[in-house]
Amino acid sequence: MTQKLTFFLARGTISVAPHIVLEELGLPYEPRWIDLRAGAQRGASYLEVNPKGRVPALSTPQGVLTETHAILVWLASTHPDAGLLPADPWERARIDELALYLAATMHVAHAHFARGGRWADDADAVAAMKAKAPALMAECCAVIEARLNDHEGPWATASGYTIADPYLYAVCRWLKGDGVAIADYPALAAHHAAMAEREAVKTVEARHA
Amino acid sequence: MTQKLTFFLARGTISVAPHIVLEELGLPYEPRWIDLRAGAQRGASYLEVNPKGRVPALSTPQGVLTETHAILVWLASTHPDAGLLPADPWERARIDELALYLAATMHVAHAHFARGGRWADDADAVAAMKAKAPALMAECCAVIEARLNDHEGPWATASGYTIADPYLYAVCRWLKGDGVAIADYPALAAHHAAMAEREAVKTVEARHA
Ligand SMILES: N[C@@H](CCC(=O)N[C@@H](CS)C(=O)NCC(=O)O)C(=O)O
Ligand SMILES: N[C@@H](CCC(=O)N[C@@H](CS)C(=O)NCC(=O)O)C(=O)O
Repeated sequence: MTQKLTFFLARGTISVAPHIVLEELGLPYEPRWIDLRAGAQRGASYLEVNPKGRVPALSTPQGVLTETHAILVWLASTHPDAGLLPADPWERARIDELALYLAATMHVAHAHFARGGRWADDADAVAAMKAKAPALMAECCAVIEARLNDHEGPWATASGYTIADPYLYAVCRWLKGDGVAIADYPALAAHHAAMAEREAVKTVEARHA
Repeated sequence: MTQKLTFFLARGTISVAPHIVLEELGLPYEPRWIDLRAGAQRGASYLEVNPKGRVPALSTPQGVLTETHAILVWLASTHPDAGLLPADPWERARIDELALYLAATMHVAHAHFARGGRWADDADAVAAMKAKAPALMAECCAVIEARLNDHEGPWATASGYTIADPYLYAVCRWLKGDGVAIADYPALAAHHAAMAEREAVKTVEARHA
């Protein structure tokens, strides 16, 4: 299947996750870098792609798709031979469960470190959110550490390497900047190290450097 | 398939969404109400079920599953005849996309209205978050309104009635309390009205009253 994919991404953001999956699948795609510091995500041309003004977005032959996990699932589902998403409903559910926690809790905790202005206009309130974010990120790490320890091997779920792994990796890239030492969470650190050895991850890291 | 399901829920919360789906599917389940005001979600016995201390959680023969959308997908996938989740990857992706936006953006915006203490310890900061939440909820409504208008009919996606509908409905139940008039968003109001007419929704509303 030849698909014309255009991938809208920004350096160091959660777009790292679908970026890795695009590389793992060896798909042809055109990267379009959005300069968040310059506010390009709120420019008229990008808002036409994604009215929510966020990255990532993936333009596909069927339309534009947003939301990290929706993109990951779609990529995996349209390339089932790569085995990045098991068909079994329970295995699948465990992957969705982790992804939803990353999206709705851990990514959100991280956003309070640097983007508290989304949720309050007052500068002191923004500072108070930033102050609490490291503790929240640490709490998220503890939740995930326990989960990683419920099965063998370095990967995020018992199903082996899946789309949950690039997603977890992309979020954990932020830990240091958010004031959390990944070494305090041995299973999480081992996951991160195993990811870093993959060719697709090396390729993506070089582009986001 | 006979399954022993135990459903952990709390009045008026996002657990309304899987509650509706359980009723739509006509599944036998044992409801276990968690009293959030009394702090039961942080009690030792519930933390054994869900270490994250949140509802909903669904105890299944394979283990406990958390995260609203993961539960919705699992229920729909294990009961494919009900047609609550299309198999086509693109249709599916559009449902995931909406669900991820509800989970990571709109539910999160709502949580800043009543539970800002999650993200800052300072009382003024919590008040500043509460003050901004209505505007954020209105912004989310505008995003979804545009999306509802891209296809015919009352439902959340072009695929007809799916798991995205109870999820959208459960979040929109909060609008009034968050200071947003759903009538300002005609497609969203029509969606809400169409949901309210379903037998499963009437049953669930009676239990959460
Ligand atoms: N729920 C979305 C969140 C996307 C998101 O917030 N992306 C950030 C980068 S990590 C962004 O675009 N920020 C730009 C801004 O807030 O202006 C997803 O999972 O894709
Ligand atoms: N990402 C979770 C969020 C669950 C959640 O935050 N539930 C709220 C009720 S709507 C809760 O349990 N709150 C209790 C608390 O914060 O103590 C999901 O989608 O299921």
